[in-house]
Amino acid sequence: MASLPPIDVPKGATGAGAFDAPAAGEPDPARFDYLLRLGDDSLILGQRLGEWCGHAPALEVDLSLANLALDLIGQATHLLGAAGDADRLAFHRDVLDFRNCLLVEQPNGDFGRTMARQLLFSTWQHLLYQRLSESTDQFLREIAAKAVKEVAYHRELASEWTVRLGDGTEESAQRMREGLDWCWRFIPELFEVDELLDGLITRGIAADPGSFADEYRSALGAVLADAKLETPADQRPILGGRRGHHSEHLGHLLAQMQFLPRTYPDAKW
Amino acid sequence: MASLPPIDVPKGATGAGAFDAPAAGEPDPARFDYLLRLGDDSLILGQRLGEWCGHAPALEVDLSLANLALDLIGQATHLLGAAGDADRLAFHRDVLDFRNCLLVEQPNGDFGRTMARQLLFSTWQHLLYQRLSESTDQFLREIAAKAVKEVAYHRELASEWTVRLGDGTEESAQRMREGLDWCWRFIPELFEVDELLDGLITRGIAADPGSFADEYRSALGAVLADAKLETPADQRPILGGRRGHHSEHLGHLLAQMQFLPRTYPDAKW
Repeated sequence: MASLPPIDVPKGATGAGAFDAPAAGEPDPARFDYLLRLGDDSLILGQRLGEWCGHAPALEVDLSLANLALDLIGQATHLLGAAGDADRLAFHRDVLDFRNCLLVEQPNGDFGRTMARQLLFSTWQHLLYQRLSESTDQFLREIAAKAVKEVAYHRELASEWTVRLGDGTEESAQRMREGLDWCWRFIPELFEVDELLDGLITRGIAADPGSFADEYRSALGAVLADAKLETPADQRPILGGRRGHHSEHLGHLLAQMQFLPRTYPDAKW
Repeated sequence: MASLPPIDVPKGATGAGAFDAPAAGEPDPARFDYLLRLGDDSLILGQRLGEWCGHAPALEVDLSLANLALDLIGQATHLLGAAGDADRLAFHRDVLDFRNCLLVEQPNGDFGRTMARQLLFSTWQHLLYQRLSESTDQFLREIAAKAVKEVAYHRELASEWTVRLGDGTEESAQRMREGLDWCWRFIPELFEVDELLDGLITRGIAADPGSFADEYRSALGAVLADAKLETPADQRPILGGRRGHHSEHLGHLLAQMQFLPRTYPDAKW
């Protein structure tokens, strides 16, 4: 435990170890952190997709990316709302306190890279939420059961675009390949099980990503085969998002997103 | 008729007067132009609201503005799709060929101005679509019947925010007042009936805005009374959007929106 950097815990948390189940009625810092991980994944990816609004290459694309963004920001609102004040957590938290995986904060790049990011994330999120809908935690069970339907559609859409671009023109295939190459090194983080997550898995609250690692790999393989694309070679993994070690890209995203509420902190909206 | 600047007609239009009903099976340039007016209103306002994505002051606001944007871009896709190739019309048309009213192209400004613009437009669009759902034109009847439900919600949301800001703090009331003052001069254009529209009203295709001008005025008056705001004084009206005379703001919006499809005109998305 000592080797992990400290984890932010909600105010009023006891001095008990962050990875132990709390006594009844006590704050549960590990669960709080897990809600942030899930909620921040959705929030940050939702923001990224929202950046396409008005810049998508076709109305159909504009609409579908906006739909995805909307689903994701809706999920974030629920997940962060279960952790505390959703707006405070979204707009008044510093970059080091964000718990999203590094994949979702990667810049949009071109449409190929955006779809590569979406494929890798949605496939993972779909498999995760399927399992989370059997969590011992009632809130997680319910939100996962609701969100899994949205995410199934995200996964389907990203899979279809991957095939359309990969099996399209020479240029679209090249863009898709480059997008996948860029995103590939962020996959291992999705399957990382640190002590905090391990404790939550033991308690039946969190889902174990290891339980669907093979299914994830073969699902991606099937899409890439349809798209006539080769599976990228494994790269040196980049980890750290779950502990607040983010790329500079997240700082820029937050600067944009948090500007207004921080400038007018007391405004009634 | 001669006093009106020329109106773009779809390729293949006959030499018949643009304001006459076409012979059966012939193109209908007036109807084409009306579809552009309605579709461009939704498209441009949808783009404007999309600009808030990731910049809204609270998650609830981010979600609701994104929802509105999505509804509006969906309407535009149908309306422009009935006029021709929706993507070509959205992404490859020059600013002079856009037919939206000037109100919707106005910059977002602060949240107060955005809500003022939304109140003035949604109230008008709601009353218009109520009438359009009885058009003699089957397509317009059906899209209006569907969209009127969305727009009723937009109107409700904008009304609620107007009251919340107007009857809120001193600062929020001031912002709402300034927003209304900015937008007020664009109201007369919403009720302008030029010869093209007049012809379509006679044919039972278009709705006559004059038929709901009083209802519009009193509806706004009721919201402003709830918001404890005075009705702004009438200003010198600005017209011309329906004939392609736009503010510089629309050019900037289109430059952003059209950049990608124009840069890669032959890309398959």
